[in-house]
Order: sequence, then C-alpha cells, then structure tokens
Amino acid sequence: MQHLKHCQGLAQVFLIRSQSSRLSKSVIPSLSVWDGHFSCRWRSTGGHGRQKYFNDRLPKFRFALAGLLAGTGAVLAYKLHQDKVQLAATSAQLRVTQTSDLPVYTLEEVTKHRSLDSGVWVTYKGGVYDITEFVAIHPGGDKILLAAGGALEPYWALYAVHQQDHVLEILSEYKIGVLNPESYKKQESANPSDPYSAEPTRHPALQINSLKPFNAEPPASILSDNYITPSVIFFKRNHLPVPRVDPEAYRLEIEGLSGGVVSLSLSELKSRFPKHTITATLQCAGNRRSEMNKVKQVKGLNWGIAAISNATWSGARLRDVLLYYGFGPEVAAKAKHVQFEGLDKDVTGTAYGASIPLNKAVSEEGDVLLAYEMNGEDLPPDHGYPVRVVVPGVVGARNVKWLGKIVVSDEESKSHWQQNDYKGFSPGTDWDTVDFKSAPAIQELPIQSAITHPAEGTSVDRSDREVTVKGYAWSGGGREVVRVDVSVDGGKTWHVAKLRTSDQGQHPAPPPPPGRAWAWKLWEIDVPIPHRAQELEIVCKAVDSGYNMQPDTVAPIWNLRGVLSNAWHRVKVKVSEGFKDQK
Amino acid sequence: MQHLKHCQGLAQVFLIRSQSSRLSKSVIPSLSVWDGHFSCRWRSTGGHGRQKYFNDRLPKFRFALAGLLAGTGAVLAYKLHQDKVQLAATSAQLRVTQTSDLPVYTLEEVTKHRSLDSGVWVTYKGGVYDITEFVAIHPGGDKILLAAGGALEPYWALYAVHQQDHVLEILSEYKIGVLNPESYKKQESANPSDPYSAEPTRHPALQINSLKPFNAEPPASILSDNYITPSVIFFKRNHLPVPRVDPEAYRLEIEGLSGGVVSLSLSELKSRFPKHTITATLQCAGNRRSEMNKVKQVKGLNWGIAAISNATWSGARLRDVLLYYGFGPEVAAKAKHVQFEGLDKDVTGTAYGASIPLNKAVSEEGDVLLAYEMNGEDLPPDHGYPVRVVVPGVVGARNVKWLGKIVVSDEESKSHWQQNDYKGFSPGTDWDTVDFKSAPAIQELPIQSAITHPAEGTSVDRSDREVTVKGYAWSGGGREVVRVDVSVDGGKTWHVAKLRTSDQGQHPAPPPPPGRAWAWKLWEIDVPIPHRAQELEIVCKAVDSGYNMQPDTVAPIWNLRGVLSNAWHRVKVKVSEGFKDQK
Repeated sequence: MQHLKHCQGLAQVFLIRSQSSRLSKSVIPSLSVWDGHFSCRWRSTGGHGRQKYFNDRLPKFRFALAGLLAGTGAVLAYKLHQDKVQLAATSAQLRVTQTSDLPVYTLEEVTKHRSLDSGVWVTYKGGVYDITEFVAIHPGGDKILLAAGGALEPYWALYAVHQQDHVLEILSEYKIGVLNPESYKKQESANPSDPYSAEPTRHPALQINSLKPFNAEPPASILSDNYITPSVIFFKRNHLPVPRVDPEAYRLEIEGLSGGVVSLSLSELKSRFPKHTITATLQCAGNRRSEMNKVKQVKGLNWGIAAISNATWSGARLRDVLLYYGFGPEVAAKAKHVQFEGLDKDVTGTAYGASIPLNKAVSEEGDVLLAYEMNGEDLPPDHGYPVRVVVPGVVGARNVKWLGKIVVSDEESKSHWQQNDYKGFSPGTDWDTVDFKSAPAIQELPIQSAITHPAEGTSVDRSDREVTVKGYAWSGGGREVVRVDVSVDGGKTWHVAKLRTSDQGQHPAPPPPPGRAWAWKLWEIDVPIPHRAQELEIVCKAVDSGYNMQPDTVAPIWNLRGVLSNAWHRVKVKVSEGFKDQK
Repeated sequence: MQHLKHCQGLAQVFLIRSQSSRLSKSVIPSLSVWDGHFSCRWRSTGGHGRQKYFNDRLPKFRFALAGLLAGTGAVLAYKLHQDKVQLAATSAQLRVTQTSDLPVYTLEEVTKHRSLDSGVWVTYKGGVYDITEFVAIHPGGDKILLAAGGALEPYWALYAVHQQDHVLEILSEYKIGVLNPESYKKQESANPSDPYSAEPTRHPALQINSLKPFNAEPPASILSDNYITPSVIFFKRNHLPVPRVDPEAYRLEIEGLSGGVVSLSLSELKSRFPKHTITATLQCAGNRRSEMNKVKQVKGLNWGIAAISNATWSGARLRDVLLYYGFGPEVAAKAKHVQFEGLDKDVTGTAYGASIPLNKAVSEEGDVLLAYEMNGEDLPPDHGYPVRVVVPGVVGARNVKWLGKIVVSDEESKSHWQQNDYKGFSPGTDWDTVDFKSAPAIQELPIQSAITHPAEGTSVDRSDREVTVKGYAWSGGGREVVRVDVSVDGGKTWHVAKLRTSDQGQHPAPPPPPGRAWAWKLWEIDVPIPHRAQELEIVCKAVDSGYNMQPDTVAPIWNLRGVLSNAWHRVKVKVSEGFKDQK
C-alpha cells in the first residue's frame, strides 16, 4: 500500500503537467500493476529521485517478462488486480481520453512503429497509442509486440480480460492521436474474426469464471446430485479458444519412439486398439481457490468448490498405443516423460502443452487413456473433441484436450503451464522470491473434499432435529477415499459420513484395485443439531487409502498461484426456530 | 469419571462384606479397567440394581474378547491405564493379599480347574487364584485360558507388562488359597525359562518404551545426525521375543504359487537371485503417538518422534523370487495379497503376520525386498536375522522380520495385526463404536516431519540472531518430500528449509524415479529470531510430491489406537538474553 500511496500522490502532482505536455511526451506517468504493487514510470528525464524510487522496484516485473509467456498469466493478473487498479485510476483522475485536439494519423504511419527502436504504436477503436514504455511492464510480457503497428482488437478478443475498464484507463495514458476515418474503416473490415466466435454453446447453469477462454463450474448445489457428472455441467477449464477439429482430417502425431514419427487417424485409433473405459474424476489445480483469496489475493481464476467433476471415459490405452508403435526397453532407457500438445493454440501458434512421468504413461496400472468418448458419447468440443488424454489421478492440467501430438522424451514439456504454472509453493514465497524451478510440476493431487449441501448462509430448522450434509471427496494418485469426517461444531466433534460410489438406484461400483481408485466418492450424513446452537459451522475432511488427511486451515497452505486449496471445507448455516416455510 | 466414582463408592461399600465372605465367593467385586472406563462386576446374585448398571456397560468389553487375540493389545491396555488403576486400587483399599488364613491346595487340585465350567484357577508365586469371572474382561482376551490350571509366570514373562503393581492388585482380588510347599517347588522347577532371556544386547542410548517385547527409539537429538541411521540405534519395534535362527537350518516357505509349496534355504535365496539394494525409511504407525496421548489417552506404546529410521537394505527382490517359483497370470487372476509370517511366535505358537497388496509385491516399481543385509552387514537379530521383508513406502508393521513364510493369497493376512490393529479411525470413534472391518489396514503412510533440534524446553541465545532448526521428513508410497516449511512463530510465517539426501561429505543421492522415493530427507534451516520474542514456537510441516500436507493440529486426527500421528510438529524454546554459557 505504500507504493500505492506514492503513485497516487505523484500522479496527482504531475496531472496538470502531463495533460498540458501530452504531445511533447515529456512527462507522462504510466500506471501499471503487477504482483499487488504499483509502479510508476516516467518517459521524461524529470523527477530523477522519484524515478529511482520506482526503478528500484522494477525487478518485480521480471516475472511479467520471463514467466508469463502466454496470455493466461496476463488474464489472471489483470483480473485479480482489477479493483486496485480501478481505485488508483479513479484517484489519479487520469481521464485523458476526452482530449479532442490530438493529431490524426494514417494506418501507414502507424505501421511504421512496430519496434522498440522506432516506437511501438497500436490502435484501438480509432485511437492511436504509443505504448513503447509500457512494453516492459506488460503483465503478458513482450507478446504485446505482436500487435505493434496495428490493431489491438484481435488480441484483446483472444484474451477477453483486456476488455475491462481499468485496462482502457491504462491504455488511455498512452494516447497520442486518432486514426483518420478511412484508415479506421479499412482496419475494421480487415480485423480477423473473434477467435472465440466458434465456441460451443454451454449449459446456462454453469457459473462462468472467464468467458474467453471459457472457464466455468456447475453450481455446487447440483454437483453432488449425480455420481457421474453430466457432460454439459462438467466443469470447463479452457486455456485458449476451443479448436474446431474435422474428425476426418484429424491426425495424432507420436514422436520419440524407435520407429520414427507416427501419424494416426481417428479411425485408426479407434479400430487398432481395444476400447477401455474408466470412471475418473478430474479436478482443476485451482479448485477452491476462492478460499485462498480470502486469506490473501492470489493469481488465478476465482474457482469455487466445483472445479471438479466425475465422468466415464473411453478410448485407447496410451500404453497400448506406445507399445504398438515401438516403445520398449531401448526407449525406456532414455525417456522419462511423455509430453502432450493440444490443437488449441495462442496467437503465436504455441499449443497448450503438458507432460506426465513416463511410468504413469506406460504402467499397466496407470490407466492413461487417449479418450474419444465421455459418458458414452463422443467427447464434447469443450472436453477435447475428438481426442483428449485422460490421466486419472493427476491434475486436470495434464489431461490435455484436442490432443495433436505425443512426444516421448527425456524432458518435461517446456510449456508455460508445465514450467511456470501449476506448481505449489510455501506461504512464505511471493513473486519477489519465487523460483519456479524449485518446485515440481503438480501431477498427483492431494486429498480433497467439500460440502455441497447445505449452502453457506442458509438456515436449518431446529424442529428437523438433524441437518443433512452432503458433499464429495476425492484423492489423487489412485488413492481411494476411505473415510469422510463431518463436524457441525467447527471441528470439535466428528461424525463419519456414508460414502457412495454410484448414482441412486445403480449398483455401487466394485472396489477398485489398490492405487487405481480414480473416481470420487459422494457422501452424506444426518447430524443431530446440537441443543442451543444458534449457528452451525459445518466442516468436512476426508482421508484416503494412504491415510492422508486434509490440513485444518487455509492460511498455512496459501500459495501465490492459489493452487492445491484442500483445507477442511467450512460452511456456516443458521439454526432457525420452527419457520420451516421460510427455509 | 462417573464410572470411576461409582466403582470406588461401591468398592468401599462392599469392602467389608467381600473380605468377610471371601471363601463363600458370594460377593467379590472385581475391579478391572478397559477403554478408560471402570467396570465392577459381582460374582454373587446380590446388588441387582447396581449390577444392571454395570452390566449395561459390558459391551465395552467385547473388544477385549474379540479384538485383542494376542498379548499386544493387553500389553498396551494395561500399560496405559496403569495410573488410573493404581488410583482406583489404592482408593478402594483392596489390600487382600495379606490374608493368611486361606486354604492350601495341591497342584493336582489346581489343574482340575481349567475351564469356565469347572472354574478357572491359576497360580502365581505360590498363591492360588480363581479367575473364572475375570476371563470375560481380560484385556488380552481368552488367551488367559492358556494358563488355566497352572502357573501364570511363563505367560507373564512373555508379556512383561503384567509385572506391574496394579496387575498384582487386580489378581489379588481373586486369591482363594495357597499352593502347598511341595507343589510350589515342583512348579517352580518346571517353569520354562524366560522367552526373553536370549534377547540381543542393545545400545545404551536407546530410549526403551517396552522391554519385553523390546521396543525402543533413539534420542531425537541424535536421530538426524546421520542420513543413514546406524543399525544399533535404528528404532526397534518387536511384537514378540526375538527368535534365534540358525542360518544353516533356516528355510523360507512360499505357498500359493502354481508349482506348489517352495522351501528355500538362505544360501539359495542369496545365490539364486540378484542382490538388490535400496535405501528406505521405516516408520512405526505409532510414531509420535505421545502427542496424541496429550489430547486424550490412546492405546499403544508411548513413542516420541523417533520411531522412524533410515537404512540401506540388500536382498532378493520379492518379485524375482515369486516369478522364479511360478507367479504368472494364472496366479495373478486369483490372488490379491501377499502374506508374510514371522518366526517370532506367541505362547500359542501363532506367528507375527501381515500382508501387502499383490501389486506392491510384484510390481517392478514396488522394490519389495527379501532383505538379508542392513547397512551392508547381515541383518542384526533385532531387525529380522536372517531375512526380513522390506516393503518400502509402507508402514513398519508390514515389513515382517525373521521371515518364515510367504503366502500368495486372495485374502489379507488373518493376523491380529492386520485385522484388528494398525488401522485408522475418526476422532469420533471410540472402543464402544469401533468396527475394525470398516477401515483398511494401514499400508502407505502419510506425509510426516518432525523437529530434532532444538529440543523442547531448551533455550536459544538472542545474540545468535538466528536459531538453527533441524529435522527429518518422509512420506509413504514412494512420494518424495519436495519441501519443508519451518516457522518460529507458531505457524504465522514460514521459511523453506534446505533438504539433504546424504550424510555430510557424501554425494547426495540422485533423485529417485517418480513414486520410488523410499528414503527420508533431512532438513535444516537458520531462522532469524524475531525481535522481542521471549519464546519461540517452532513448527515444521512437509510437503510430498503428491502435494500432500500435514494437518495443523493433533486433536482432529486423534484416533483410539494413536496411529498416524502426523500433525505439524511443534517445539517451544525460550529466548535467553546473552547467557550463552548457560545454554
């Protein structure tokens, strides 16, 4: 907050000067935000002392440059700091968009400014902006240069988070002119279509965390209604636009085997290998991140408790496919990882990517699938049509959708999501001190459980004598959930819930072999309402077959990316006195 | 405590009557203890109302009968309730051993009473006792009948916990006479020697939790001095007397394979199969049980933080042996478990036993050894000479020592230790409600860590500015420890410790393949002493490769057997002001 105060004060001091001297570009404070700190920079040579103050803090931005190669990081950073930026922007009263005496440029003039040497100009809705100084502090890194000399619209369409007021306010600081009407018209007609224009329709019940890319979870209240989550409400976690794949043209490439590169059609995948079906729960590493945000702001989509779902998956075993195409001792002696690349690509053509350890991929017990069916039907577009990897027991991020390529390698995937994201850190580690190389990429997830009923803030009726509590529990690595403890007094006393492994009226699934419990368990319990209690703090915690337990509280597992949020889940409800109708 | 008060009151009321009517056996209150509750029973038909009161509570004893087949449970139960029993015995002033006008019996008369029908009489040091009524409430179950009609000494020698004052006090209630001198002399000479007389000598540094059977741990302060724990201070956890095995006569039997029963000599085991070496940490399920005892008394040896140690183990792979003797798809189709039996036996000839899942036993990645060397030398007698199973990543109890038999089976071991011990339960489950069948036998253990330096209650000097904190961390299932967080302010702020995988001056071990990290990591960190702090609450918590975390506190993971105690470890030290010499 000290930084914030400095920035606000300085912005006010320099406001008149910056407005009056805009065209001379002598002193224009640029306000940006990263890592919860504000930094101000000047394009002039004035204010040296203050400039030094902020320059000293510039290392904070190295992660903006080094770590966040693709748009995802930028999306998250922008979104999470929205409130702070708005506050700052408002306070500083940097309302410079109203200027009407700005010079007029042609598109040709703009296109000459596409490098740091010549200056970096961009256009947005007919305005011309010199963002040269902003490039270094762009949370999304130097990908911003892709738009140099042209329109921002196509890129902002890809990362929709840019379309927020505070981003426009930041941009407005850099306005140097307007496009002439012909140029603007020409540009508008040339704009490529929105890469998200072909997204599939989604179920209206989904609660959307981000529209572009699409990220949404079902309401917690309906999540535990089905043991097998219907595909339409299965949580969606896309990093990029959904690619539309022609099943006839689809090819899956496999590299790193002794026989050279393999190219496999969809029908070959389906016909050449036995179809294998598993029931497996997928969970986003960021499930329940919102609880971490309450401790201290983290970077990432603000998931509730429903970034987890359970489905049946059918497809070829990855093991079978790799063995068929030449995986053997010779390859095994050198390889350590199996990398996956999606057909979903960012503006630079970089595909989504991830990898898993080789032994998980080739073990008979690993059950890794190249899945082409979900819940008995073709994969829906949001879940990777026509083929995705299902790596049961492993974090969602490695279950690569729209699978385009498999690489058997001695190295992990080099992708941003494997190297600089989806890793856990100590609560004492912040963006100043984080070293992404120091932590392993998340693979297996820890024990998890949450309460889906009753909902926070609702009431239970004392005359019911009991409160019915429901939820889900799951653990990574194929570790079976063996017990769920439920408390209605904040964790002082505990009751053991009944576990369920099927939908109502269905036969329970047979117990899985040890280490291959890929599916969640739903649980339910009626707990007596304690006498005199005015409020219940309902708590659940699960135990898996390795007798791993959930930690009690969120703060000690807080981490800067807000992943692995698996503390006891807590829900507070009021006890009402005989007003059943008002429940 | 309500029960206790009732019992004391009743004992006092009936004291005179019981003493005066001893020989008529009309009303003799028998005081016993189980599950932290007292119960009184009467051998007469008098006192119906009160008798009903206690009879209603008799289900508490069903576990004494059903659950505790072997002596272990009795040992634990007796030991833990020692204080309470002493209190009660003293209060009730049941000092009946001083009676000198008791009838004299011959050994022949005693031997006629060896069943519940004829009455159960035993002798102890020349006294004769009718324990018929006690059989049903004997914590060790009906094994007590083994002594019927004869001397208790040989059995109490086996389970040394009986040799405590309160046990004698309980026994004294049942005294009905004395042996004639000839009988006593004859009996004394016939008594078998102490089965513990041939125990190996042990290192004097060991802290003994139980002498017979021998259970001991090294002082925590020296535990983390060595990455490879010297065998002499490696924690010892014996359930029965150490068998002395002649290596020439040793045979290992293997059942359940297609070729019939196999009998294998030690030299065959050593010569026929490649020698494989692993470094693996073993941990007792009850490690850190003493912390659970502080929450609420549990049953079990009062282990500190050092029932865990790390060694190198060499031997034949179990997988190799099973495959050699006919394990294949035919066996695999039916079998699910591999059972082990030790050569250590209780008084009934029942061997110590345990089992592990088949896939752990036969998987290439399981690394299960039939070990004949520990730290480069023959196994010491306390660690299973000549052959033990080492099941890395799995609770100590399954690492059967003095291995006599292997059975490939569709069933788990039927042994007490597999079925009715070494399982985890909810904190809400007590001995009234526990159903041992409801919980899986512990196999993989959860993430664990503890502080070995500084010790609780010591001081650090403020002028040192920093406090050096050291400890160990390990997780079951081959999950590698990836981080240890240390706090000196009770968990408010955290620092990341340095991890170590070798002894000082040795090369660090290469990183293990995923899922095969069998050995602990030692850790160390210098943490600044916070200004003004008068006391430090040092806390550690570890994270494994599945990002499993330790729970914050003990109470919510408390369980009646006191196993799986892996909450954050906490050590309080004072901050002293410049008195270095007094540290």
